[in-house]
Amino acid sequence: MARVGYIGLGLMGAPMARNLMGAGHDLVVHNRSRAIVEQLASEGATPATSPREVAEQSDFVFTNLPDSPDVELVVLGADGVLAGAHAGMIYIDNSTIKPETARRIAAELEKVGAAGLDAPVSGGDIGAKAGTLSIMVGGPQEAYDRALPLFEVLGKTITRVGDSGAGQIAKAANQTVVAGTMVAMCEALVLAQKAGVDPARVVQAISRGAAQCWALDNKPAKLFKRDLAPGFKAYMQAKDLKIVVDTGRTYEVPLPLTAVTHQIFEAMIGMGNGDLDNSAVITVLEALASVQVGQAE
Amino acid sequence: MARVGYIGLGLMGAPMARNLMGAGHDLVVHNRSRAIVEQLASEGATPATSPREVAEQSDFVFTNLPDSPDVELVVLGADGVLAGAHAGMIYIDNSTIKPETARRIAAELEKVGAAGLDAPVSGGDIGAKAGTLSIMVGGPQEAYDRALPLFEVLGKTITRVGDSGAGQIAKAANQTVVAGTMVAMCEALVLAQKAGVDPARVVQAISRGAAQCWALDNKPAKLFKRDLAPGFKAYMQAKDLKIVVDTGRTYEVPLPLTAVTHQIFEAMIGMGNGDLDNSAVITVLEALASVQVGQAE
Repeated sequence: MARVGYIGLGLMGAPMARNLMGAGHDLVVHNRSRAIVEQLASEGATPATSPREVAEQSDFVFTNLPDSPDVELVVLGADGVLAGAHAGMIYIDNSTIKPETARRIAAELEKVGAAGLDAPVSGGDIGAKAGTLSIMVGGPQEAYDRALPLFEVLGKTITRVGDSGAGQIAKAANQTVVAGTMVAMCEALVLAQKAGVDPARVVQAISRGAAQCWALDNKPAKLFKRDLAPGFKAYMQAKDLKIVVDTGRTYEVPLPLTAVTHQIFEAMIGMGNGDLDNSAVITVLEALASVQVGQAE
Repeated sequence: MARVGYIGLGLMGAPMARNLMGAGHDLVVHNRSRAIVEQLASEGATPATSPREVAEQSDFVFTNLPDSPDVELVVLGADGVLAGAHAGMIYIDNSTIKPETARRIAAELEKVGAAGLDAPVSGGDIGAKAGTLSIMVGGPQEAYDRALPLFEVLGKTITRVGDSGAGQIAKAANQTVVAGTMVAMCEALVLAQKAGVDPARVVQAISRGAAQCWALDNKPAKLFKRDLAPGFKAYMQAKDLKIVVDTGRTYEVPLPLTAVTHQIFEAMIGMGNGDLDNSAVITVLEALASVQVGQAE
Protein backbone atom coordinates (compact mmCIF):
# COMPACT_ATOMS: atom_id res chain seq x y z
CA MET A 1 0.00 0.00 0.00
CA ALA A 2 1.24 3.47 -0.86
CA ARG A 3 1.45 6.71 1.07
CA VAL A 4 -1.06 8.91 -0.75
CA GLY A 5 -1.71 12.62 -0.28
CA TYR A 6 -4.86 14.41 -1.45
CA ILE A 7 -5.19 18.21 -1.58
CA GLY A 8 -8.50 19.85 -2.51
CA LEU A 9 -11.34 17.98 -0.84
CA GLY A 10 -14.35 19.46 -2.62
CA LEU A 11 -17.33 17.84 -4.34
CA MET A 12 -14.96 15.68 -6.43
CA GLY A 13 -11.83 15.49 -4.26
CA ALA A 14 -13.44 14.28 -1.03
CA PRO A 15 -15.07 11.12 -2.44
CA MET A 16 -11.95 10.37 -4.52
CA ALA A 17 -9.76 10.66 -1.40
CA ARG A 18 -12.18 8.42 0.49
CA ASN A 19 -12.00 5.77 -2.23
CA LEU A 20 -8.19 5.76 -2.04
CA MET A 21 -8.35 5.34 1.74
CA GLY A 22 -11.01 2.65 1.31
CA ALA A 23 -8.61 0.73 -0.96
CA GLY A 24 -6.19 0.52 1.98
CA HIS A 25 -3.77 3.35 1.23
CA ASP A 26 -2.35 5.62 3.96
CA LEU A 27 -3.99 8.96 3.26
CA VAL A 28 -2.65 12.42 4.12
CA VAL A 29 -5.06 15.27 3.42
CA HIS A 30 -5.06 19.04 3.14
CA ASN A 31 -7.75 21.57 2.24
CA ARG A 32 -8.22 25.33 2.54
CA SER A 33 -11.39 25.01 4.62
CA ARG A 34 -10.72 22.67 7.53
CA ALA A 35 -14.09 21.03 8.22
CA ILE A 36 -13.65 18.32 5.58
CA VAL A 37 -10.05 17.72 6.75
CA GLU A 38 -11.30 17.03 10.29
CA GLN A 39 -14.05 14.83 8.88
CA LEU A 40 -11.58 12.70 6.89
CA ALA A 41 -9.20 12.63 9.88
CA SER A 42 -12.03 11.13 11.93
CA GLU A 43 -12.30 8.45 9.23
CA GLY A 44 -8.61 7.59 9.50
CA ALA A 45 -6.70 10.09 7.34
CA THR A 46 -3.71 12.10 8.59
CA PRO A 47 -4.30 15.86 8.46
CA ALA A 48 -1.54 18.12 7.15
CA THR A 49 -1.16 21.88 7.49
CA SER A 50 0.32 22.65 4.05
CA PRO A 51 0.77 21.12 0.59
CA ARG A 52 4.51 20.91 1.37
CA GLU A 53 3.77 18.74 4.41
CA VAL A 54 1.50 16.49 2.32
CA ALA A 55 4.27 16.04 -0.26
CA GLU A 56 6.95 15.30 2.35
CA GLN A 57 4.85 12.43 3.73
CA SER A 58 3.60 10.94 0.42
CA ASP A 59 4.71 8.80 -2.54
CA PHE A 60 1.73 10.04 -4.60
CA VAL A 61 0.26 13.53 -4.22
CA PHE A 62 -3.12 14.34 -5.77
CA THR A 63 -4.67 17.77 -6.24
CA ASN A 64 -8.23 18.58 -7.23
CA LEU A 65 -8.70 22.34 -7.45
CA PRO A 66 -10.98 24.79 -9.28
CA ASP A 67 -8.67 26.41 -11.83
CA SER A 68 -5.13 26.92 -13.14
CA PRO A 69 -4.10 29.71 -10.68
CA ASP A 70 -5.17 27.53 -7.74
CA VAL A 71 -3.02 24.65 -8.94
CA GLU A 72 -0.06 26.97 -9.56
CA LEU A 73 -0.33 28.37 -6.04
CA VAL A 74 -0.69 24.97 -4.35
CA VAL A 75 2.20 23.38 -6.27
CA LEU A 76 4.64 26.21 -6.97
CA GLY A 77 3.74 28.66 -4.15
CA ALA A 78 5.31 28.99 -0.69
CA ASP A 79 4.97 25.74 1.27
CA GLY A 80 3.66 24.17 -1.94
CA VAL A 81 3.91 20.62 -3.25
CA LEU A 82 7.19 21.39 -5.05
CA ALA A 83 8.79 22.53 -1.77
CA GLY A 84 8.08 19.11 -0.29
CA ALA A 85 8.72 17.05 -3.40
CA HIS A 86 11.35 14.30 -3.39
CA ALA A 87 12.93 11.89 -5.86
CA GLY A 88 10.44 9.25 -7.00
CA MET A 89 7.38 11.19 -5.82
CA ILE A 90 4.54 11.30 -8.35
CA TYR A 91 2.28 14.34 -8.47
CA ILE A 92 -1.16 13.76 -10.02
CA ASP A 93 -3.49 16.66 -10.82
CA ASN A 94 -7.17 15.76 -11.18
CA SER A 95 -8.13 19.41 -11.80
CA THR A 96 -9.15 20.73 -15.21
CA ILE A 97 -6.58 23.41 -16.03
CA LYS A 98 -4.61 24.84 -18.95
CA PRO A 99 -2.33 22.31 -20.67
CA GLU A 100 0.56 24.81 -20.55
CA THR A 101 0.27 25.05 -16.77
CA ALA A 102 0.32 21.26 -16.50
CA ARG A 103 3.46 21.09 -18.65
CA ARG A 104 5.25 23.81 -16.67
CA ILE A 105 4.50 22.10 -13.34
CA ALA A 106 5.67 18.72 -14.67
CA ALA A 107 8.93 20.32 -15.82
CA GLU A 108 9.53 21.87 -12.38
CA LEU A 109 8.91 18.56 -10.63
CA GLU A 110 11.26 16.75 -12.98
CA LYS A 111 14.11 19.01 -11.82
CA VAL A 112 13.90 17.51 -8.32
CA GLY A 113 13.54 13.91 -9.55
CA ALA A 114 9.74 13.80 -9.12
CA ALA A 115 7.17 13.31 -11.90
CA GLY A 116 3.94 15.07 -12.77
CA LEU A 117 0.82 13.60 -14.38
CA ASP A 118 -2.12 15.70 -15.54
CA ALA A 119 -5.16 13.50 -14.97
CA PRO A 120 -8.41 15.45 -15.34
CA VAL A 121 -11.57 13.43 -14.87
CA SER A 122 -15.06 13.28 -16.29
CA GLY A 123 -18.14 11.71 -14.72
CA GLY A 124 -19.21 14.18 -12.01
CA ASP A 125 -19.59 13.65 -8.27
CA ILE A 126 -21.64 10.49 -8.95
CA GLY A 127 -18.68 8.98 -10.82
CA ALA A 128 -16.29 10.22 -8.13
CA LYS A 129 -18.26 8.45 -5.38
CA ALA A 130 -18.79 5.26 -7.39
CA GLY A 131 -15.17 5.11 -8.62
CA THR A 132 -16.36 5.06 -12.22
CA LEU A 133 -14.71 8.25 -13.55
CA SER A 134 -13.12 8.62 -16.96
CA ILE A 135 -9.51 9.67 -16.37
CA MET A 136 -7.48 11.30 -19.15
CA VAL A 137 -3.79 11.18 -18.37
CA GLY A 138 -0.77 13.05 -19.74
CA GLY A 139 2.81 12.44 -18.64
CA PRO A 140 5.68 9.94 -18.61
CA GLN A 141 4.77 6.31 -19.27
CA GLU A 142 6.75 5.07 -16.25
CA ALA A 143 4.95 7.39 -13.82
CA TYR A 144 1.63 6.43 -15.41
CA ASP A 145 2.38 2.73 -14.93
CA ARG A 146 3.22 3.26 -11.27
CA ALA A 147 0.08 5.36 -10.68
CA LEU A 148 -2.26 3.04 -12.60
CA PRO A 149 -3.38 0.98 -9.57
CA LEU A 150 -4.51 4.22 -7.92
CA PHE A 151 -6.33 5.37 -11.08
CA GLU A 152 -8.09 2.01 -11.13
CA VAL A 153 -9.47 2.74 -7.67
CA LEU A 154 -10.86 6.08 -8.89
CA GLY A 155 -12.11 5.35 -12.39
CA LYS A 156 -13.29 2.90 -14.98
CA THR A 157 -12.02 4.32 -18.31
CA ILE A 158 -8.37 5.24 -17.89
CA THR A 159 -6.43 6.44 -20.92
CA ARG A 160 -2.84 7.65 -21.15
CA VAL A 161 -3.40 10.12 -23.97
CA GLY A 162 0.22 11.20 -24.39
CA ASP A 163 2.96 13.29 -22.80
CA SER A 164 2.56 16.00 -20.21
CA GLY A 165 -0.46 18.22 -20.97
CA ALA A 166 -2.14 15.63 -23.19
CA GLY A 167 -4.65 14.75 -20.47
CA GLN A 168 -5.72 18.40 -20.31
CA ILE A 169 -5.96 18.57 -24.11
CA ALA A 170 -8.24 15.52 -24.05
CA LYS A 171 -10.36 17.15 -21.34
CA ALA A 172 -10.60 20.32 -23.45
CA ALA A 173 -11.71 18.20 -26.41
CA ASN A 174 -14.23 16.48 -24.14
CA GLN A 175 -15.71 19.77 -22.96
CA THR A 176 -15.96 21.08 -26.53
CA VAL A 177 -18.14 18.12 -27.47
CA VAL A 178 -20.10 18.01 -24.18
CA ALA A 179 -21.04 21.69 -24.38
CA GLY A 180 -21.64 21.59 -28.14
CA THR A 181 -24.06 18.67 -27.96
CA MET A 182 -25.81 20.23 -24.95
CA VAL A 183 -26.42 23.60 -26.64
CA ALA A 184 -27.38 21.98 -29.98
CA MET A 185 -29.92 19.80 -28.18
CA CYS A 186 -31.35 22.81 -26.33
CA GLU A 187 -31.73 24.78 -29.59
CA ALA A 188 -33.56 21.81 -31.10
CA LEU A 189 -35.94 21.50 -28.13
CA VAL A 190 -36.70 25.24 -27.99
CA LEU A 191 -37.35 25.36 -31.75
CA ALA A 192 -39.81 22.47 -31.48
CA GLN A 193 -41.60 24.00 -28.50
CA LYS A 194 -42.00 27.43 -30.09
CA ALA A 195 -43.14 25.87 -33.39
CA GLY A 196 -45.95 24.14 -31.50
CA VAL A 197 -44.55 20.61 -31.65
CA ASP A 198 -44.17 18.40 -28.56
CA PRO A 199 -40.41 18.34 -27.86
CA ALA A 200 -40.75 14.93 -26.18
CA ARG A 201 -42.01 13.46 -29.45
CA VAL A 202 -39.17 15.15 -31.30
CA VAL A 203 -36.68 13.53 -28.93
CA GLN A 204 -38.35 10.18 -29.55
CA ALA A 205 -38.16 10.71 -33.33
CA ILE A 206 -34.49 11.77 -33.55
CA SER A 207 -32.63 10.06 -30.71
CA ARG A 208 -31.85 6.77 -32.42
CA GLY A 209 -30.19 8.14 -35.58
CA ALA A 210 -27.24 10.38 -36.39
CA ALA A 211 -28.40 12.87 -33.73
CA GLN A 212 -27.93 10.30 -30.97
CA CYS A 213 -25.81 11.67 -28.13
CA TRP A 214 -25.37 11.32 -24.36
CA ALA A 215 -27.08 14.67 -23.82
CA LEU A 216 -30.19 13.62 -25.78
CA ASP A 217 -30.25 10.24 -24.01
CA ASN A 218 -29.97 11.65 -20.50
CA LYS A 219 -31.23 15.22 -20.21
CA PRO A 220 -34.62 15.85 -21.92
CA ALA A 221 -36.70 13.90 -19.36
CA LYS A 222 -35.17 16.02 -16.57
CA LEU A 223 -35.60 19.26 -18.49
CA PHE A 224 -39.28 18.53 -19.19
CA LYS A 225 -39.79 18.01 -15.43
CA ARG A 226 -37.87 21.27 -14.83
CA ASP A 227 -35.25 19.34 -12.87
CA LEU A 228 -32.25 21.65 -13.36
CA ALA A 229 -30.22 20.51 -10.34
CA PRO A 230 -26.55 19.64 -10.96
CA GLY A 231 -24.93 17.20 -12.05
CA PHE A 232 -22.20 19.29 -13.55
CA LYS A 233 -22.53 22.94 -12.64
CA ALA A 234 -22.78 25.45 -15.46
CA TYR A 235 -20.15 27.80 -14.01
CA MET A 236 -17.63 24.93 -14.10
CA GLN A 237 -18.66 24.22 -17.70
CA ALA A 238 -18.09 27.90 -18.52
CA LYS A 239 -14.70 27.86 -16.78
CA ASP A 240 -13.69 24.75 -18.74
CA LEU A 241 -14.84 26.35 -22.02
CA LYS A 242 -12.69 29.39 -21.27
CA ILE A 243 -9.74 26.99 -20.96
CA VAL A 244 -10.68 25.43 -24.32
CA VAL A 245 -10.89 28.79 -26.08
CA ASP A 246 -7.63 30.00 -24.44
CA THR A 247 -5.95 26.73 -25.45
CA GLY A 248 -7.19 27.26 -29.00
CA ARG A 249 -5.55 30.69 -28.96
CA THR A 250 -2.30 29.22 -27.63
CA TYR A 251 -2.11 26.68 -30.46
CA GLU A 252 -3.64 29.01 -33.09
CA VAL A 253 -6.76 26.90 -33.55
CA PRO A 254 -9.88 29.03 -34.19
CA LEU A 255 -12.89 27.34 -32.56
CA PRO A 256 -15.98 29.20 -33.84
CA LEU A 257 -18.55 26.76 -32.43
CA THR A 258 -16.88 26.47 -29.03
CA ALA A 259 -16.59 30.25 -28.83
CA VAL A 260 -20.37 30.48 -29.22
CA THR A 261 -21.11 27.73 -26.68
CA HIS A 262 -18.72 29.51 -24.27
CA GLN A 263 -20.59 32.80 -24.70
CA ILE A 264 -23.95 31.06 -24.20
CA PHE A 265 -22.72 29.54 -20.92
CA GLU A 266 -21.38 32.97 -19.86
CA ALA A 267 -24.86 34.36 -20.59
CA MET A 268 -26.31 31.64 -18.35
CA ILE A 269 -24.05 32.76 -15.50
CA GLY A 270 -25.09 36.36 -16.17
CA MET A 271 -28.71 35.25 -15.76
CA GLY A 272 -27.84 33.96 -12.29
CA ASN A 273 -28.11 30.31 -13.30
CA GLY A 274 -24.45 29.29 -12.91
CA ASP A 275 -25.18 26.88 -10.05
CA LEU A 276 -27.66 24.88 -12.13
CA ASP A 277 -26.81 21.83 -14.25
CA ASN A 278 -25.05 22.46 -17.56
CA SER A 279 -28.18 21.17 -19.35
CA ALA A 280 -30.02 24.16 -17.83
CA VAL A 281 -28.25 26.19 -20.53
CA ILE A 282 -31.66 25.71 -22.14
CA THR A 283 -32.75 28.71 -20.00
CA VAL A 284 -30.58 30.95 -22.22
CA LEU A 285 -32.18 29.69 -25.45
CA GLU A 286 -35.62 29.91 -23.83
CA ALA A 287 -34.97 33.54 -22.85
CA LEU A 288 -33.89 34.37 -26.42
CA ALA A 289 -37.06 32.78 -27.81
CA SER A 290 -39.48 33.85 -25.03
CA VAL A 291 -40.70 30.31 -24.49
CA GLN A 292 -40.33 27.54 -21.92
CA VAL A 293 -39.82 23.92 -22.90
CA GLY A 294 -42.15 21.35 -21.37
CA GLN A 295 -44.63 18.69 -22.27
CA ALA A 296 -46.57 20.32 -25.11
CA GLU A 297 -49.46 17.88 -25.07
CA MET B 1 -51.62 -4.24 -51.95
CA ALA B 2 -51.86 -0.52 -52.70
CA ARG B 3 -51.30 1.55 -55.81
CA VAL B 4 -48.20 3.56 -54.90
CA GLY B 5 -46.60 6.43 -56.81
CA TYR B 6 -43.05 7.65 -56.28
CA ILE B 7 -41.71 10.93 -57.71
CA GLY B 8 -38.05 11.87 -57.34
CA LEU B 9 -35.89 8.81 -57.88
CA GLY B 10 -32.52 10.05 -56.65
CA LEU B 11 -30.00 8.59 -54.22
CA MET B 12 -32.75 8.22 -51.62
CA GLY B 13 -35.93 7.95 -53.70
CA ALA B 14 -34.86 5.12 -56.02
CA PRO B 15 -34.05 2.54 -53.29
CA MET B 16 -37.16 3.57 -51.32
CA ALA B 17 -39.34 3.09 -54.42
CA ARG B 18 -37.69 -0.28 -55.03
CA ASN B 19 -38.44 -1.39 -51.47
CA LEU B 20 -42.12 -0.49 -51.91
CA MET B 21 -42.24 -2.47 -55.15
CA GLY B 22 -40.39 -5.33 -53.44
CA ALA B 23 -43.10 -5.42 -50.75
CA GLY B 24 -45.63 -6.20 -53.51
CA HIS B 25 -47.16 -2.81 -54.19
CA ASP B 26 -48.06 -1.62 -57.71
CA LEU B 27 -45.56 1.16 -58.35
CA VAL B 28 -45.98 4.16 -60.67
CA VAL B 29 -42.85 6.29 -61.04
CA HIS B 30 -41.82 9.68 -62.36
CA ASN B 31 -38.52 11.56 -62.40
CA ARG B 32 -37.09 14.58 -64.22
CA SER B 33 -34.23 12.60 -65.73
CA ARG B 34 -35.63 9.51 -67.43
CA ALA B 35 -32.84 6.89 -67.15
CA ILE B 36 -33.88 5.78 -63.65
CA VAL B 37 -37.55 5.70 -64.73
CA GLU B 38 -36.68 3.28 -67.55
CA GLN B 39 -34.56 1.25 -65.15
CA LEU B 40 -37.41 0.89 -62.65
CA ALA B 41 -39.87 0.19 -65.50
CA SER B 42 -37.64 -2.71 -66.53
CA GLU B 43 -37.96 -3.97 -62.95
CA GLY B 44 -41.78 -3.87 -63.10
CA ALA B 45 -42.83 -0.30 -62.31
CA THR B 46 -45.24 1.71 -64.48
CA PRO B 47 -43.66 4.88 -65.92
CA ALA B 48 -45.66 8.11 -65.86
CA THR B 49 -45.03 11.34 -67.75
CA SER B 50 -46.09 13.84 -65.08
CA PRO B 51 -46.76 14.10 -61.33
CA ARG B 52 -50.45 14.55 -62.22
CA GLU B 53 -50.47 11.20 -64.01
CA VAL B 54 -48.81 9.53 -61.02
CA ALA B 55 -51.45 10.95 -58.69
CA GLU B 56 -54.34 9.92 -60.93
CA GLN B 57 -53.16 6.29 -60.83
CA SER B 58 -52.22 6.04 -57.14
CA ASP B 59 -53.70 5.73 -53.64
CA PHE B 60 -50.43 6.90 -52.09
CA VAL B 61 -48.08 9.38 -53.78
CA PHE B 62 -44.54 9.87 -52.45
CA THR B 63 -42.11 12.64 -53.36
CA ASN B 64 -38.43 12.82 -52.54
CA LEU B 65 -36.98 16.06 -53.87
CA PRO B 66 -34.04 18.35 -53.08
CA ASP B 67 -35.72 21.43 -51.60
CA SER B 68 -38.91 23.37 -50.87
CA PRO B 69 -39.29 25.02 -54.34
CA ASP B 70 -38.98 21.60 -56.04
CA VAL B 71 -41.77 20.18 -53.89
CA GLU B 72 -43.97 23.24 -54.49
CA LEU B 73 -43.49 22.89 -58.25
CA VAL B 74 -44.13 19.14 -58.35
CA VAL B 75 -47.23 19.32 -56.14
CA LEU B 76 -48.78 22.71 -56.87
CA GLY B 77 -47.42 23.41 -60.36
CA ALA B 78 -48.99 22.67 -63.76
CA ASP B 79 -49.61 18.92 -64.16
CA GLY B 80 -48.63 18.56 -60.52
CA VAL B 81 -49.76 16.09 -57.86
CA LEU B 82 -52.60 18.37 -56.77
CA ALA B 83 -54.01 18.41 -60.33
CA GLY B 84 -54.28 14.61 -60.21
CA ALA B 85 -55.32 14.32 -56.57
CA HIS B 86 -58.59 12.61 -55.65
CA ALA B 87 -60.62 12.00 -52.50
CA GLY B 88 -58.88 9.52 -50.19
CA MET B 89 -55.49 9.90 -51.85
CA ILE B 90 -52.60 10.30 -49.40
CA TYR B 91 -49.61 12.40 -50.39
CA ILE B 92 -46.38 11.66 -48.51
CA ASP B 93 -43.34 13.90 -48.82
CA ASN B 94 -40.02 12.31 -47.87
CA SER B 95 -38.10 15.49 -48.76
CA THR B 96 -36.61 17.81 -46.15
CA ILE B 97 -38.33 21.16 -46.69
CA LYS B 98 -39.69 24.13 -44.76
CA PRO B 99 -42.47 23.25 -42.30
CA GLU B 100 -44.60 26.14 -43.66
CA THR B 101 -44.44 24.69 -47.18
CA ALA B 102 -45.50 21.29 -45.85
CA ARG B 103 -48.46 22.88 -44.04
CA ARG B 104 -49.55 24.87 -47.10
CA ILE B 105 -49.45 21.80 -49.35
CA ALA B 106 -51.40 19.71 -46.84
CA ALA B 107 -54.07 22.44 -46.69
CA GLU B 108 -54.39 22.51 -50.50
CA LEU B 109 -54.77 18.73 -50.66
CA GLU B 110 -57.40 18.76 -47.92
CA LYS B 111 -59.56 21.00 -50.13
CA VAL B 112 -59.94 18.15 -52.65
CA GLY B 113 -60.48 15.46 -50.03
CA ALA B 114 -56.91 14.16 -50.12
CA ALA B 115 -54.44 14.22 -47.21
CA GLY B 116 -50.79 15.29 -46.92
CA LEU B 117 -48.13 13.87 -44.64
CA ASP B 118 -44.69 15.41 -44.24
CA ALA B 119 -42.38 12.46 -43.65
CA PRO B 120 -38.72 13.44 -43.89
CA VAL B 121 -36.24 10.68 -43.26
CA SER B 122 -32.85 10.22 -41.68
CA GLY B 123 -30.37 7.41 -42.23
CA GLY B 124 -28.82 8.12 -45.62
CA ASP B 125 -28.76 6.00 -48.75
CA ILE B 126 -27.60 3.02 -46.69
CA GLY B 127 -30.75 3.24 -44.57
CA ALA B 128 -32.85 3.82 -47.69
CA LYS B 129 -31.55 0.62 -49.28
CA ALA B 130 -31.80 -1.45 -46.10
CA GLY B 131 -35.26 -0.12 -45.21
CA THR B 132 -33.97 1.05 -41.83
CA LEU B 133 -34.65 4.78 -42.08
CA SER B 134 -35.93 6.95 -39.26
CA ILE B 135 -39.15 8.57 -40.48
CA MET B 136 -40.54 11.69 -38.77
CA VAL B 137 -44.16 12.23 -39.69
CA GLY B 138 -46.48 15.21 -39.41
CA GLY B 139 -50.15 15.17 -40.42
CA PRO B 140 -53.58 13.75 -39.61
CA GLN B 141 -53.63 10.62 -37.44
CA GLU B 142 -56.01 8.80 -39.80
CA ALA B 143 -53.78 9.32 -42.85
CA TYR B 144 -50.77 8.28 -40.76
CA ASP B 145 -52.50 5.08 -39.70
CA ARG B 146 -53.34 4.22 -43.30
CA ALA B 147 -49.78 4.96 -44.49
CA LEU B 148 -48.06 3.15 -41.62
CA PRO B 149 -47.68 -0.22 -43.44
CA LEU B 150 -45.80 1.62 -46.20
CA PHE B 151 -43.60 3.46 -43.69
CA GLU B 152 -42.80 0.10 -42.12
CA VAL B 153 -41.45 -1.07 -45.48
CA LEU B 154 -39.16 1.98 -45.66
CA GLY B 155 -37.97 2.48 -42.10
CA LYS B 156 -37.36 1.13 -38.65
CA THR B 157 -38.06 4.07 -36.32
CA ILE B 158 -41.36 5.66 -37.34
CA THR B 159 -42.77 8.47 -35.22
CA ARG B 160 -45.87 10.57 -35.75
CA VAL B 161 -44.53 13.76 -34.20
CA GLY B 162 -47.70 15.82 -34.50
CA ASP B 163 -49.86 17.70 -36.98
CA SER B 164 -48.87 18.86 -40.44
CA GLY B 165 -45.35 20.31 -40.47
CA ALA B 166 -44.31 18.54 -37.26
CA GLY B 167 -42.27 15.98 -39.20
CA GLN B 168 -40.27 18.81 -40.78
CA ILE B 169 -39.81 20.48 -37.38
CA ALA B 170 -38.42 17.19 -36.03
CA LYS B 171 -36.10 16.93 -39.03
CA ALA B 172 -34.91 20.50 -38.41
CA ALA B 173 -34.24 19.57 -34.78
CA ASN B 174 -32.41 16.47 -35.98
CA GLN B 175 -30.17 18.46 -38.32
CA THR B 176 -29.39 21.00 -35.59
CA VAL B 177 -28.03 18.22 -33.40
CA VAL B 178 -26.37 16.25 -36.22
CA ALA B 179 -24.47 19.29 -37.51
CA GLY B 180 -23.70 20.60 -34.01
CA THR B 181 -22.16 17.33 -32.83
CA MET B 182 -20.23 16.99 -36.09
CA VAL B 183 -18.65 20.45 -35.91
CA ALA B 184 -17.97 20.16 -32.16
CA MET B 185 -16.20 16.83 -32.76
CA CYS B 186 -14.15 18.33 -35.59
CA GLU B 187 -13.05 21.28 -33.43
CA ALA B 188 -11.99 18.82 -30.72
CA LEU B 189 -9.97 16.69 -33.16
CA VAL B 190 -8.26 19.68 -34.79
CA LEU B 191 -7.36 21.17 -31.39
CA ALA B 192 -5.80 17.87 -30.30
CA GLN B 193 -3.85 17.51 -33.54
CA LYS B 194 -2.43 21.04 -33.49
CA ALA B 195 -1.55 20.73 -29.78
CA GLY B 196 0.56 17.68 -30.65
CA VAL B 197 -1.72 15.05 -29.13
CA ASP B 198 -2.86 11.94 -31.04
CA PRO B 199 -6.55 12.62 -31.84
CA ALA B 200 -7.23 8.86 -31.94
CA ARG B 201 -6.21 8.59 -28.29
CA VAL B 202 -8.36 11.58 -27.46
CA VAL B 203 -11.34 9.87 -29.08
CA GLN B 204 -10.59 6.76 -27.03
CA ALA B 205 -10.40 8.82 -23.84
CA ILE B 206 -13.62 10.83 -24.27
CA SER B 207 -16.04 8.68 -26.25
CA ARG B 208 -17.56 6.72 -23.38
CA GLY B 209 -18.62 9.65 -21.17
CA ALA B 210 -20.81 12.72 -21.54
CA ALA B 211 -19.20 13.50 -24.93
CA GLN B 212 -20.50 10.24 -26.43
CA CYS B 213 -22.34 10.83 -29.69
CA TRP B 214 -23.07 9.09 -32.98
CA ALA B 215 -20.55 11.32 -34.77
CA LEU B 216 -17.74 10.39 -32.36
CA ASP B 217 -18.69 6.71 -32.56
CA ASN B 218 -18.79 6.57 -36.37
CA LYS B 219 -16.65 9.22 -38.03
CA PRO B 220 -13.12 9.55 -36.53
CA ALA B 221 -11.79 6.26 -37.94
CA LYS B 222 -12.86 7.35 -41.44
CA LEU B 223 -11.47 10.87 -41.01
CA PHE B 224 -8.08 9.52 -39.85
CA LYS B 225 -7.96 7.36 -43.02
CA ARG B 226 -8.95 10.48 -45.02
CA ASP B 227 -12.10 8.69 -46.17
CA LEU B 228 -14.33 11.71 -46.86
CA ALA B 229 -16.77 10.02 -49.25
CA PRO B 230 -20.48 10.49 -48.54
CA GLY B 231 -22.62 9.22 -46.64
CA PHE B 232 -24.60 12.41 -46.29
CA LYS B 233 -23.37 15.13 -48.63
CA ALA B 234 -22.29 18.42 -47.07
CA TYR B 235 -24.28 20.56 -49.52
CA MET B 236 -27.46 18.78 -48.40
CA GLN B 237 -26.46 19.35 -44.78
CA ALA B 238 -25.97 23.06 -45.58
CA LYS B 239 -29.35 23.21 -47.34
CA ASP B 240 -31.03 21.59 -44.35
CA LEU B 241 -29.32 24.02 -41.96
CA LYS B 242 -30.61 26.93 -44.03
CA ILE B 243 -34.11 25.50 -43.50
CA VAL B 244 -33.43 25.27 -39.75
CA VAL B 245 -32.24 28.88 -39.52
CA ASP B 246 -35.14 30.11 -41.70
CA THR B 247 -37.57 28.14 -39.54
CA GLY B 248 -36.03 29.74 -36.45
CA ARG B 249 -36.70 33.14 -37.99
CA THR B 250 -40.31 32.16 -38.82
CA TYR B 251 -40.99 31.19 -35.20
CA GLU B 252 -38.75 33.89 -33.67
CA VAL B 253 -36.27 31.41 -32.21
CA PRO B 254 -32.68 32.70 -32.29
CA LEU B 255 -30.32 29.77 -32.90
CA PRO B 256 -26.78 31.08 -32.31
CA LEU B 257 -25.05 27.69 -32.43
CA THR B 258 -26.92 26.47 -35.51
CA ALA B 259 -26.20 29.76 -37.26
CA VAL B 260 -22.49 29.11 -36.79
CA THR B 261 -22.66 25.47 -37.91
CA HIS B 262 -24.61 26.67 -40.98
CA GLN B 263 -21.91 29.21 -41.83
CA ILE B 264 -19.18 26.60 -41.38
CA PHE B 265 -20.95 24.25 -43.81
CA GLU B 266 -21.38 27.16 -46.25
CA ALA B 267 -17.62 27.73 -45.97
CA MET B 268 -17.08 24.06 -46.80
CA ILE B 269 -19.12 24.46 -49.98
CA GLY B 270 -17.12 27.61 -50.79
CA MET B 271 -13.95 25.50 -50.50
CA GLY B 272 -15.36 23.16 -53.17
CA ASN B 273 -16.00 20.33 -50.71
CA GLY B 274 -19.80 20.26 -50.88
CA ASP B 275 -19.92 16.79 -52.43
CA LEU B 276 -17.96 15.24 -49.57
CA ASP B 277 -19.46 13.68 -46.45
CA ASN B 278 -20.80 16.07 -43.80
CA SER B 279 -18.02 14.84 -41.46
CA ALA B 280 -15.55 16.33 -43.97
CA VAL B 281 -16.56 19.68 -42.45
CA ILE B 282 -13.30 19.03 -40.60
CA THR B 283 -11.58 20.46 -43.70
CA VAL B 284 -12.94 23.91 -42.74
CA LEU B 285 -11.56 23.72 -39.20
CA GLU B 286 -8.28 22.32 -40.57
CA ALA B 287 -8.01 25.26 -42.98
CA LEU B 288 -8.60 27.74 -40.16
CA ALA B 289 -5.90 26.08 -38.05
CA SER B 290 -3.46 25.22 -40.86
CA VAL B 291 -3.26 21.58 -39.83
CA GLN B 292 -4.50 18.20 -41.03
CA VAL B 293 -5.90 15.59 -38.69
CA GLY B 294 -4.43 12.09 -38.91
CA GLN B 295 -2.71 9.50 -36.82
CA ALA B 296 -0.23 11.57 -34.81
CA GLU B 297 1.88 8.68 -33.52
